Amino acid sequence: MSPRQTNPKDPVSGLPQKGIPEATVARLPVYLRALHGLKDRGVATVSSEELASAAGVNSAKLRKDLSHLGSYGTRGVGYEVEYLVYQISRELGLTQDWVVAIIGVGNLGRALAGYGGFASRGFRVAGLLDADSSIVGQHISGLTVEHTDQLETIIKDHGVSIAVIATPAAAAQPLCDRVVAAGVTSVLNFAPVVLNVPEGVDVRKVDLSIELQILAFHEQRKAGGPVGELPNGYIEVHQ
Amino acid sequence: MSPRQTNPKDPVSGLPQKGIPEATVARLPVYLRALHGLKDRGVATVSSEELASAAGVNSAKLRKDLSHLGSYGTRGVGYEVEYLVYQISRELGLTQDWVVAIIGVGNLGRALAGYGGFASRGFRVAGLLDADSSIVGQHISGLTVEHTDQLETIIKDHGVSIAVIATPAAAAQPLCDRVVAAGVTSVLNFAPVVLNVPEGVDVRKVDLSIELQILAFHEQRKAGGPVGELPNGYIEVHQ
Repeated sequence: MSPRQTNPKDPVSGLPQKGIPEATVARLPVYLRALHGLKDRGVATVSSEELASAAGVNSAKLRKDLSHLGSYGTRGVGYEVEYLVYQISRELGLTQDWVVAIIGVGNLGRALAGYGGFASRGFRVAGLLDADSSIVGQHISGLTVEHTDQLETIIKDHGVSIAVIATPAAAAQPLCDRVVAAGVTSVLNFAPVVLNVPEGVDVRKVDLSIELQILAFHEQRKAGGPVGELPNGYIEVHQ
Repeated sequence: MSPRQTNPKDPVSGLPQKGIPEATVARLPVYLRALHGLKDRGVATVSSEELASAAGVNSAKLRKDLSHLGSYGTRGVGYEVEYLVYQISRELGLTQDWVVAIIGVGNLGRALAGYGGFASRGFRVAGLLDADSSIVGQHISGLTVEHTDQLETIIKDHGVSIAVIATPAAAAQPLCDRVVAAGVTSVLNFAPVVLNVPEGVDVRKVDLSIELQILAFHEQRKAGGPVGELPNGYIEVHQ
């Protein structure tokens, strides 16, 4: 989902420094969610097979991913749930608090402001900003919406380290430029546009239609396979 | 992002039938988005390196993924953008229209109802449903919100094949059960709960905090590495 990754890479292996592959990093939050579910149910230890099944991956991949964290489990016992929660949280940086500003307080911005999954993972929304003066001043999820004119002040005063952009497409790049100029180096982009950022800034783009497309693939399989007309000028060649 | 995958697997390879690995399926929408961007800019052919860079993967992985579709490009030329858009769209099932119902019309449901990325990928929202009578009857993105009492009727009358659940946690499972009983076999779940479904039904769960967690990982790396206190009873062992 990330068109740009500017984190430092090891020049020999091509892996991120400290040797955790990007694909592993992307699966750690999924393992963490499964582990929180187990912890909530009072489960103390979990086998790699059980955890892999809960996370929707195969157990060999799970064991390899966790070995990058120096976590190998105990033969015949598995992994200690609480310690593994700690290890993954620490690796992901969730044992510290991150201050987030949400820019764009339309339906999506409001949904994100009230999203319980942020607070429970260490993300604290400290600012809601919008350019629409009819929205500025509204109270949403315990915060007062402020005008985007105040963007730089809010970033500085609250120590914002991650900006969430949930504006229409046209507004996103100028706001992203201001966020980056104010020193923020992580941007989560919900706007339907590719954002350009300088070296050293990480942008991740969320495309809410991607999961629907994966469902469509499986739905089509259940219905008997692909159908569709070729574009003009092409003929089908069976391979 | 999918804790449950019930699509049929090949008993020998463990791959989905017709041999496209699940991880490849998950990357196809990302390639498609990059290709649409190239097509919009009038680009006719693209090298595997350029496309891989736009999609944020390495080019060897891209070529392997596309080989599953029988697409190998032309040496020294690359891939024809328009034909590859067609091939991936066809594989994903996007050359046909999918009828979607959104259940739960809070901030997130409203944001999804107005999300341009659905329509442009072949997903047609045919129904918006909510249990709150103060929301029923509202006009949102060209549709009138209907009561969840009408769920089965709307699924049948519109031929809904994918249900999007954007309700609070407690409402999600009973509504999911009704959707499945009405014959829907694909569910996209935004509610913060794991849904149980029978064999043959695909559920994908969207966790909006996952991308934030990946950003936190990189932000922490930029700041110099993990920090955090061990849970009670554990001591740090360096490996």
